[in-house]
Amino acid sequence: MSDVIDALVNFTHAPLDESAETAQALEMMRLSLLDWASVAIAGAGEPVAKITRTLGMSDGGTPAATVIGCATRLPMPTAALINGATSHALDYDDTHFAHIGHPSVAVIPAALAVAEAFDLSGEQTLQAALIGIEASIRVGIWLGRAHYQTGFHQTATAGAFGATVAAARLMGLDADQTAHALGLCSTRAAGLKSQFGTMGKPYHAGMAAQTGVEVARAAHAGFISSPHGLDGAQGFGPTHAGEGNIHAFAGLGTMWKIQTISHKFHACCHGTHAMIEALSPLMLSPEKLVRLQMETHPRWLSVCNKNAPRTGLEVKFSYAHVAAMVVAGQDTAALDSFTDEIATAPALMALAQKVEVVGNDALSETEARLVIDTTDGRKQAQFDLAAPMEIDTRRRKLRAKSRALLGAQADRLWAAIEGRGDGVELSSLTRLLRLA
Amino acid sequence: MSDVIDALVNFTHAPLDESAETAQALEMMRLSLLDWASVAIAGAGEPVAKITRTLGMSDGGTPAATVIGCATRLPMPTAALINGATSHALDYDDTHFAHIGHPSVAVIPAALAVAEAFDLSGEQTLQAALIGIEASIRVGIWLGRAHYQTGFHQTATAGAFGATVAAARLMGLDADQTAHALGLCSTRAAGLKSQFGTMGKPYHAGMAAQTGVEVARAAHAGFISSPHGLDGAQGFGPTHAGEGNIHAFAGLGTMWKIQTISHKFHACCHGTHAMIEALSPLMLSPEKLVRLQMETHPRWLSVCNKNAPRTGLEVKFSYAHVAAMVVAGQDTAALDSFTDEIATAPALMALAQKVEVVGNDALSETEARLVIDTTDGRKQAQFDLAAPMEIDTRRRKLRAKSRALLGAQADRLWAAIEGRGDGVELSSLTRLLRLA
Repeated sequence: MSDVIDALVNFTHAPLDESAETAQALEMMRLSLLDWASVAIAGAGEPVAKITRTLGMSDGGTPAATVIGCATRLPMPTAALINGATSHALDYDDTHFAHIGHPSVAVIPAALAVAEAFDLSGEQTLQAALIGIEASIRVGIWLGRAHYQTGFHQTATAGAFGATVAAARLMGLDADQTAHALGLCSTRAAGLKSQFGTMGKPYHAGMAAQTGVEVARAAHAGFISSPHGLDGAQGFGPTHAGEGNIHAFAGLGTMWKIQTISHKFHACCHGTHAMIEALSPLMLSPEKLVRLQMETHPRWLSVCNKNAPRTGLEVKFSYAHVAAMVVAGQDTAALDSFTDEIATAPALMALAQKVEVVGNDALSETEARLVIDTTDGRKQAQFDLAAPMEIDTRRRKLRAKSRALLGAQADRLWAAIEGRGDGVELSSLTRLLRLA
Repeated sequence: MSDVIDALVNFTHAPLDESAETAQALEMMRLSLLDWASVAIAGAGEPVAKITRTLGMSDGGTPAATVIGCATRLPMPTAALINGATSHALDYDDTHFAHIGHPSVAVIPAALAVAEAFDLSGEQTLQAALIGIEASIRVGIWLGRAHYQTGFHQTATAGAFGATVAAARLMGLDADQTAHALGLCSTRAAGLKSQFGTMGKPYHAGMAAQTGVEVARAAHAGFISSPHGLDGAQGFGPTHAGEGNIHAFAGLGTMWKIQTISHKFHACCHGTHAMIEALSPLMLSPEKLVRLQMETHPRWLSVCNKNAPRTGLEVKFSYAHVAAMVVAGQDTAALDSFTDEIATAPALMALAQKVEVVGNDALSETEARLVIDTTDGRKQAQFDLAAPMEIDTRRRKLRAKSRALLGAQADRLWAAIEGRGDGVELSSLTRLLRLA
């Protein structure tokens, strides 16, 4: 086995250690599970969710795994596909900036489907999701920015490997079987950024989750693949513009990249969030704003600096319009704030014209810096999404987001995830997902 | 729509014209269907067929489409996956050298699954398979040698687009829906040559067929994808080392690349076939052979010039050993000729040592040239697999191959495919596939 395969195979099956770091990582995973389930339930009515669910239900089959928004269970791979697409439908799920993608939506649906089909416990599911998400982040870093810039979507590609790791752990594959699963994943993993802005983007999360389930159970049943599939001369990495950054796997199992995951607290492009966090505490009066200059990493200029947005969807990708909403006191956390009407509201359009956006490559992708001239004088502010957040603060904010999305259902969801002191209650969680 | 998408969408739905060329193409398709069904039925006992079939049967579901070797029908995507992998398991199916891959195994399983689920006729199936295979060959040429050399497997990648076209035609998608299906296919199509020599290779055919079915029915149900998915700046072609050879689509619908498909008449690597065809008619006596020099296109030297093969599988990729088998009068058409024992048979090893293989890039990939010294003097021979073959000769040879693989079943299979003068009898064909 290569060093990369070796590292991933060992990590797949290693027991979690008793360190404080690992305990914190598991707690972060629990919060990501809450966040994932919240946005998944809230997304069950989206078109991509309905289409994949309708097709899956028409196929039917062994009732092995819960499907979000569907009373009857379906086979594992079908459930993984639908739940992946459904949970990414709102694009309101977690992000890891170094992974360059959305880890939970690719991995959790795979872990959940296998755990339910194999009758495993909620805490086994949580641990497998943690291992899978950590693996997907590391593979994403190993593939690197070159992979993303060439046109691949790490949510789909690196996500498939994370889903494979989670499924392999839960199915109890041995080391050779795990290597075969990763090899088969290498020839199935796919997903292109050119689908952004269409249903193809959330579908990628479903593809990744489904691939993880399919390849793990194929290996479990004796499937033989090539051990050179991932990092061999014509393996997935080299053929998909992967950087092959071997440092990506340093500290696997003791240091946790999941600690630097970002949760979305606003229902718009993640690139706008640092600006919102910097701007919100200033409590500016709209009538006093003269000029707002913001600096951001240049990468975002092609992503979320849309001028004169015409729809609610386009507003989500417009620095100026989102800044105007914050100054005007609109709730950027609420899904229904981003209507088509808001795009052409005269007061917001006037405020947006006072915003100037500048790229600055001295900033990281998680930073924003503001210089604001008001009739009371100049103010400055900055924010970095990568700044550590107390776990209690994060939990409070995520539970508030969950309540905003789900209402009274949110408390039942948290009770299922926290359990009665003994961790995730899988049957309660899956029941809430089915009721979505 | 781009020119490429436009050409594919129009081709998907155009009625077949009444020309002699199109009638010949359809007859070629009928022979490829016979060949596909023969190798598929013969491959039903292979490990990759058993694994995918077992997993599909454990999922169960709506009995919509026939699965080779399975009494009960399964959902369309499941059937497409299993039947693709099963029909490529023996690697004895047809090849198109300019496409650089195996068209039938990716496209026919998709067409068959959709036709059965939508209750269409055998001749509609045959026409859709023809259109799909022609599209897959054209996309393979459009992607070109650079795609293959970089590490991608056209059977899987171009094959998925062909399967999509066949499925879209049979489902009756409109032009926009077909474009969305092709867009979604662009972000799902995958498959790497690094899986060659493992179960991953036949699995590729199943992936392609399944993708075609999945994306066509998603588009049918309203799925929206990006129109830039295939040939846009970060579409499938540009991100997968595609050459973008626009001439690939010239004459679509009037000239048929399927006419230059190659059928395998020997149960070993296609790269050895021109040599076998050149050598067989000479009827050499083993004891008179002094030296056999063969020239082949250099591409094949890394594929089928294995020295001192140790297994029956390795013999299939050894020019010298296969030449020795022909000289010794062994039947290279029979699957069971390629045993592990034959690899170490002393008489064959001695003959193999008299064979010398030389690369010559003045030859095409379908040619072989022989210079043979015998105790009676020097003989020369050559063969080009691309040389035209009379349709009657091809039919006779394919029916003989089918009989060698299936025995008495072969005549029933041909009767189902020829029909009683009115074309393919789908119910008879699928019954024979289920009984495999």
